[in-house]
Amino acid sequence: MAATGRDDDDGVRAPGTADGERVQAALRRHLAARREVVAGVDPGVDRLAGLLADFVLDGGKRMRPRFALAGWAAAGPDEGSAPDEVVAACAALELIQACALVHDDIVDASDTRRGRPTVHRATEAVHRENSWDGDAARYGVSQAILLGDLALTWADEMFVGSGVEPEALGRALGPWYAMKTEVLAGQMLDVLAEASGATDEETPRRVNRYKTAAYTVERPVHIGAALAGAPDETVRALREFGVAVGQAFQLRDDMLGVFGDPEVTGKPSGDDLREGKRTLLLARAVGLAGADDGEFLLSVLGTEPDPDALDRARTILVGSGAVASVEAEIDALIARALEAIGSEAVSPHGRRALRDLADAATRRRS
Amino acid sequence: MAATGRDDDDGVRAPGTADGERVQAALRRHLAARREVVAGVDPGVDRLAGLLADFVLDGGKRMRPRFALAGWAAAGPDEGSAPDEVVAACAALELIQACALVHDDIVDASDTRRGRPTVHRATEAVHRENSWDGDAARYGVSQAILLGDLALTWADEMFVGSGVEPEALGRALGPWYAMKTEVLAGQMLDVLAEASGATDEETPRRVNRYKTAAYTVERPVHIGAALAGAPDETVRALREFGVAVGQAFQLRDDMLGVFGDPEVTGKPSGDDLREGKRTLLLARAVGLAGADDGEFLLSVLGTEPDPDALDRARTILVGSGAVASVEAEIDALIARALEAIGSEAVSPHGRRALRDLADAATRRRS
Repeated sequence: MAATGRDDDDGVRAPGTADGERVQAALRRHLAARREVVAGVDPGVDRLAGLLADFVLDGGKRMRPRFALAGWAAAGPDEGSAPDEVVAACAALELIQACALVHDDIVDASDTRRGRPTVHRATEAVHRENSWDGDAARYGVSQAILLGDLALTWADEMFVGSGVEPEALGRALGPWYAMKTEVLAGQMLDVLAEASGATDEETPRRVNRYKTAAYTVERPVHIGAALAGAPDETVRALREFGVAVGQAFQLRDDMLGVFGDPEVTGKPSGDDLREGKRTLLLARAVGLAGADDGEFLLSVLGTEPDPDALDRARTILVGSGAVASVEAEIDALIARALEAIGSEAVSPHGRRALRDLADAATRRRS
Repeated sequence: MAATGRDDDDGVRAPGTADGERVQAALRRHLAARREVVAGVDPGVDRLAGLLADFVLDGGKRMRPRFALAGWAAAGPDEGSAPDEVVAACAALELIQACALVHDDIVDASDTRRGRPTVHRATEAVHRENSWDGDAARYGVSQAILLGDLALTWADEMFVGSGVEPEALGRALGPWYAMKTEVLAGQMLDVLAEASGATDEETPRRVNRYKTAAYTVERPVHIGAALAGAPDETVRALREFGVAVGQAFQLRDDMLGVFGDPEVTGKPSGDDLREGKRTLLLARAVGLAGADDGEFLLSVLGTEPDPDALDRARTILVGSGAVASVEAEIDALIARALEAIGSEAVSPHGRRALRDLADAATRRRS
């Protein structure tokens, strides 16, 4: 029921692009200033906040800020780089992502993320090392819930306090808040679908639409364009691009969740089956395969399948035609996305940046 | 480790004051508008959001919005009521409180709140009723974490989108964000102190300062004053009042946590001892009592004490002089608070409202 794709799971730092470095610097500054407030309350709490800061600064591809900055560029006539205030506003998306990941790892009971202990496991370990009172696991979860809340609080503070002029901020607040509600609603639907055992294609499609597409691409490019004061036509084109790329991104994630190389994804092989994820890939295979094979697939969900069972599941996913059909859908989505930004409403340098990001998001191996 | 006092536990609706009704109406409007976005994602998710909306609309004394509105009144020369935008901005404090309570009930593993199942228990029950897949308790906690996040998101959206003019909002954002970081830092310190078994007075004092005083009174009155454009002198007076009343509020809470009438508080008798809370009342008793009695008090913490043990603990708390000394401290804090707002920097009608609220917060029985 991950709130997020594998995009943050691979321990790979944001590539050393100028945008990536500037996002990193903005996050470092904001976190340092926030930690001063926390340190004023208590040094022990500041150490906890340090875990959060390390988590934010140590990993992730910075996908959402980069999409937002590409959205900003798409609305600009020249190739100049975004002012610091815009970079800070876009970087704030990483703090929402930090909350999503920290809380999601509790929901999924995950032990590792980016090759390190998850935040609730790290705080649990501190409890054990100090032989403190009470249940260590519960302590870890409690502090991680609060640290996720802190990340969410600091995200809003960073966005609203980024320094962009009030008019630009006023335009961007609509998509900012819409995105926050959409991603949470998408996550709740995901948890609900997993529990209620939905097998239709409509449910994962809706989860992908809000939990992934709106959150990862559509609203970030929308926010970037709104900050730049883009005309309606540009905003429309970018959102259409975002919905399509975001859905393709999730479909790629579905494939990696079953066929990904554990060495590259940083997750165990076949992790989505083990976690019982109701992906669109799975729903399609159940629909296309014969009754026996479909039942077998569903029976594997949420279990610890042995290598033979995992092999059979993969064979069914391929043999049913589900894999080929999802790959074809990814291609069609990318084509639609690129068509959406093909008009003059999108600047040529913005289009290039968007195309590169779309490629990275949907051709990735992790 | 409650994030909050008993102030929300008693099932009592906000008194039918004009302010209380207007806060309620603002919350109802905002929640209805937010739920439209959620309903657009999925009707099942909207039912979950309905649990949150009911939770927000059904209970609580609306202490924080009322302190904020009194802070606004304190800065105004006449007795006119606050405009709708100011009421909406102040009402947003209740959504932060909703997140705090929902997440806190997970942290404390509480089953009931305001005489009803807590949100994680209510969602867990839906899982059981439908005989869904997976662990019902884990499902309940997962959805409640996300619903708390939703409340926190909607709080910011309500505050920033309240409609107050940009200049007033700009002034109020400082205390708004500071409060959000302070309450989370205070909660983390509380969880940390409980685990590490701190017995000094300094730790609960610091927890009270941030988790309760800043969050419940100081920052709300500060926010109200900032919205009104109060001069520095007024802000200073209000914050001094807020710190003192907020601390007195927590000390009253400590007393109710051991001596409160379960019929009135809605919590089991002696609940703080059972939960192992490291209150200032307890720390003082341990300091004042003889070694045997002090050890006995600490041994009761976090256990299910029988009536005799509870009686002995109460006898020690009284006999050691801790109760009398905490009562004296409450009186001294109230006196200091009233002195702080005695100057001309605070309007007479604002002073009256603040005094009434201080009284309600510190003389309460629940």
